[in-house]
Order: sequence, then structure tokens, then C-alpha cells
Amino acid sequence: MNNFADRLEQKISQTGNPTVIGLDPVLEYIPQDIVDYFGKQCDDPVLSASLAIYEFNKRLIDHVADIVPAVKPQLAYYEKYGSHGMRALQRTIQYAGKAGMLVIADGKRNDIGSTADAYASAWLGENLLPDDSSAPMFDADALTVNAYLGLDGIKPFIAVCRKKGKGIFVLVRTSNPSAGDVQDLILSDGRTVYEAMAAKVAEWGDDLIGACGYSSVGAVVGATWPLQAAKLRKLMPKSFILVPGYGAQGASADDAISSFSSDGRGAIVNASRSIMLAWKTQQMAHGEFAIAARREALLMKAKLRQALEKRAK
Amino acid sequence: MNNFADRLEQKISQTGNPTVIGLDPVLEYIPQDIVDYFGKQCDDPVLSASLAIYEFNKRLIDHVADIVPAVKPQLAYYEKYGSHGMRALQRTIQYAGKAGMLVIADGKRNDIGSTADAYASAWLGENLLPDDSSAPMFDADALTVNAYLGLDGIKPFIAVCRKKGKGIFVLVRTSNPSAGDVQDLILSDGRTVYEAMAAKVAEWGDDLIGACGYSSVGAVVGATWPLQAAKLRKLMPKSFILVPGYGAQGASADDAISSFSSDGRGAIVNASRSIMLAWKTQQMAHGEFAIAARREALLMKAKLRQALEKRAK
Repeated sequence: MNNFADRLEQKISQTGNPTVIGLDPVLEYIPQDIVDYFGKQCDDPVLSASLAIYEFNKRLIDHVADIVPAVKPQLAYYEKYGSHGMRALQRTIQYAGKAGMLVIADGKRNDIGSTADAYASAWLGENLLPDDSSAPMFDADALTVNAYLGLDGIKPFIAVCRKKGKGIFVLVRTSNPSAGDVQDLILSDGRTVYEAMAAKVAEWGDDLIGACGYSSVGAVVGATWPLQAAKLRKLMPKSFILVPGYGAQGASADDAISSFSSDGRGAIVNASRSIMLAWKTQQMAHGEFAIAARREALLMKAKLRQALEKRAK
Repeated sequence: MNNFADRLEQKISQTGNPTVIGLDPVLEYIPQDIVDYFGKQCDDPVLSASLAIYEFNKRLIDHVADIVPAVKPQLAYYEKYGSHGMRALQRTIQYAGKAGMLVIADGKRNDIGSTADAYASAWLGENLLPDDSSAPMFDADALTVNAYLGLDGIKPFIAVCRKKGKGIFVLVRTSNPSAGDVQDLILSDGRTVYEAMAAKVAEWGDDLIGACGYSSVGAVVGATWPLQAAKLRKLMPKSFILVPGYGAQGASADDAISSFSSDGRGAIVNASRSIMLAWKTQQMAHGEFAIAARREALLMKAKLRQALEKRAK
């Protein structure tokens, strides 16, 4: 199976769970005993922070890999710790893959021509080595991208997706309060900028549609905008939609499912803070964060399925 | 002096040269003897590629630091070599800083809220460590950013710019052929998307204006679109403009200076491939790439100054 949308659809079907867990490990989220353990192991605080991040991710993955199809590391939180942080990210991606999870690298990368090609190679493809061989580097299954630069900023990513069975999610309508600053501007033809972006995403994805009926060129549509999401679902009937904004950002399960097709497929909902900090809402000890995360993930799955069943009636 | 625009203006004034050299070290650009040397030093081809990249950058910096105000590493080319590549980038930024050059990290980063904050901390600010101290990580002087997500994606960067005397350059009109796909869409009020973006950049930068009269919240405007650039200069009279597209991408010195104010200030022109591959156009040996780069940089400076003088008449 060499189409990302098909691989994602299969994982969602296997687990019965259209969710992805964000791995945004800020240091405050990590139990103190993990941080202290690595602090004693090495003198370099940047390295010890990075080792603690990897350990945190590993424990989380161990506790959710059988019930959640994918993880979404947010690259910023690894860049904060420089090369050590990026090593923790590489190891996290490998570990999640071995645990059977798909990895969506949330980097919102964007550039043109040869530089877009370099990003595509770094995150999804292969990279030239001095001995003229080539090797994957971060090797995620999918990457989020920003298409403000237009088609020739996206083409190199699509080429790698086709060649390697990988995917991208293009920002269409983001979940943040001021998403509308640029995305809601009204065009002379009556559409908004985000609707115009959606039309492009649908077009760009047209020849990467898998057996499941969805494209490996997906879209990001925030759960915090359910009305817009319902409209966007129709404008991009074959795009796999990544839905951020559920939980800590305020969107409910009913909001989040606005991006799903009428048959309950074609989208995946992200939760980050609500999962990583579930030990707080569940009044458990910080050290039990991974058990709490699993409970919260099962709760989220149940809420989404309930919302989808209610809507289907 | 704690305003990025002032620091940049001062370096341009000292060198008499409004240019920045791109550090986009694809392996093919690096002389074979450098690649071979590090290939013999270590068994890991990813590490040896990264060491070769750092050596290439160092030689280039050594040959231009007295005549060029800044370098602009394109982050994609470092991500291609994973954590080793990011280490090469960290060392390059440090080396350029010690050589007296400003560093504009070209990452086109973008996200919202706490994640935008994490990017700002990683590239321009300070990062929390396990012992509750904090430390800079990549510590560039400025970062390119993409504002498709609106103000709350930009605010965290502006906050760090204010606190640490750093700068950002917001993508307004990019240099690539399909820049217009999104940026040229016509709004209901008759403006284009890129003009609306320019208005926002001007507004966002309003309280980070330095003694030089320009803001540390700058803009990216491609040299390949001189007519649009002239219009954008007027819409963003106080934004420092970063101008890509000169040289290998086809724009001339006359095109590039469209982004400069009438007094010949307020912009800086980037060249990457034309500098790194100058040994080819100057028919020199690959091993002399740094000497050729210096010659090409001086030629570029002369061409820009000539174009500015011609226009001033």
C-alpha cells in the first residue's frame, strides 16, 4: 500500500479512531522525575532536556499506539533544543513508526523551487550523501505545509509524496482566533481567501487519490470554525482533512466532525494539550501522565464516534 | 544598540553594501576535496556531509565578512542532514556572528500561540532548561516568517524582537513564478492579497521602528517583481525589505532596487547561488569558490550602487 491516504485510512479503520495525538513536549509537561533523571545523567542541560523529551514521548507512544493511528510532533518544540532537540525528534519519529503509528510532522514548511525540494527531502524523502548514495532523514509519513507561495512551493512536496507514498496537509483554515486576518479576506469573486486556497488544494490533490477515495494532498481546517469546515468539506470532497483545535483550544466533538464526510470518513482530529495534560483533568499524579493520556484518548475516541453516530441519524 | 533595523542599517552603512549572502549549501556546491576530507575523518556519511557544509560556510564567511553585512542560511539545507545538519547550522550562525556578520535565518516559520512562541524562542530568543535557567539556542539576528495565520501567529515573534533586539521579515510578495497563485488574488476592495499583507506588515511594525527610521518587522519582496515592489515600498514606507531573486533567479540590479526607498536605504538584496557558484561564471577552479564568491559579492555591490546612483539622478 503506497498511498498515504490509504495508509492513514487503514490505521483509522483498524483502531476505529480518527484521532492523532500531538507531541508538543514543553518541559513543564514532563514529570519532574524524568527531568531529574536525565539531569543527573549528563552535564549538558540542553542534552538532558532533549533526552527527557524523548523519554516523555516514548512513554506516551507506548500507552496509545494500539488505540491511536498517528502522532503529530510539532517541530517548534524540538527546535527549541537545537541539534539535540532535533535528535530527540528523529528518535521519536522512528519509535512511533516501530510502534505502528503514522507520524505527521507539523512544521508548516514552505518555500520555493529547490528549497521546497530540500524540505520535502528532509522530512519525507531521501537526501544525497557524500558517497553519492541517498538516505531518508526525518522520514515522517506526512508534513504540514503552508501554500502562501503558490503551486511551485507545493509541487516538490507532491513529487515526493507520489514517489514515497507520503502525504502533506496544506493550511487552509487555521484554528486560531486571528485566522481570519488573511484567510477571511473577501475576494472580488465573492469567495474568501481560504475558499480559494481550498479550491487549489482540491486541484493539487487530484492525481494522488488513493483506493480509499481520499487524496494524500490533504488540508488543515480548524475545529474551532465548524461552519467554515462544513463548507470546506464540500469544496475539498477528496482531501483528507487534519483538524486541530479540539479540546484545549475550545472545540467540541460536534465541532470537530464538521470536517468529516457524511459517511464519517476523510478526516482526523488532533489533540495535544488535552492529552498530554490529562493527568490534571483526571486528578491523577503527574507521573501517571501516560495512563491518563490513554484514558483521555479513549474518551476522545468515544466522544467523536458518538458525535458521528448522532449526525448520521 | 538594541533594535535590529538599526543594527542592520549600521552594518550596511559600514560596508556600503546593502546585500546578504545566502548560505544554501547543497552538497554539489562544495568542492570535492572538502567533502573527501571529512569523508575520511568519520564513518557516518550524514555527519561528514554536515562537517563539510560547516567548512564550506566558514570559508565563505571568512572571505566576505568585511564586505557583506549579513548571511542568510536557508534552513531546509541543514534539515536535510538531520540533527548533524542542525549542529552545522548552529555553528555557522555562531561563526558568522563572531566574524561580525548579522544572520537572517530563512525558515519561513509560522504557527499560532504557544507554538509560534516556541519558534520565536528557538530562533531568536531564550529557551527554558531543566535547571530553570534559560538559554538562547540558534540565536539568529532575524528570521523570515509566513503570516498566513494572521496576527496571533506573528505576535510572539514581535515580542521576542522587542525584548532581544531581533527582527523578522514577513513574506509579502515572493520571488517565484507562481507567487501570484495566492498573493495576486484580487480582493473585493480592489487590493491584492499581497497588498493587504503589506498593510498588515506596516501596521505590525509600527512600534518597533528604530532610530534609522525603519522597523525590525520587515518584509520579503522578490526582486523578480519590480513593479509590485515599487508599489509595496510605498505601502510599507518603514519596513526593512529583504529582496530575494537577484542573480540566479533572473532579477537585475535595476529590478532589485525597486524595493529601496528614494534615499537608497531600507532594503537588503540577497544572492545565493550566484555567489556560491561564482567560480563557474568566473571560470575559476571549484577549490577557489570563496575567492570567486568575494569577487562576485564586490561586483554585486558595485552593480547595486550603480543602479541606486542612476536612479537618484
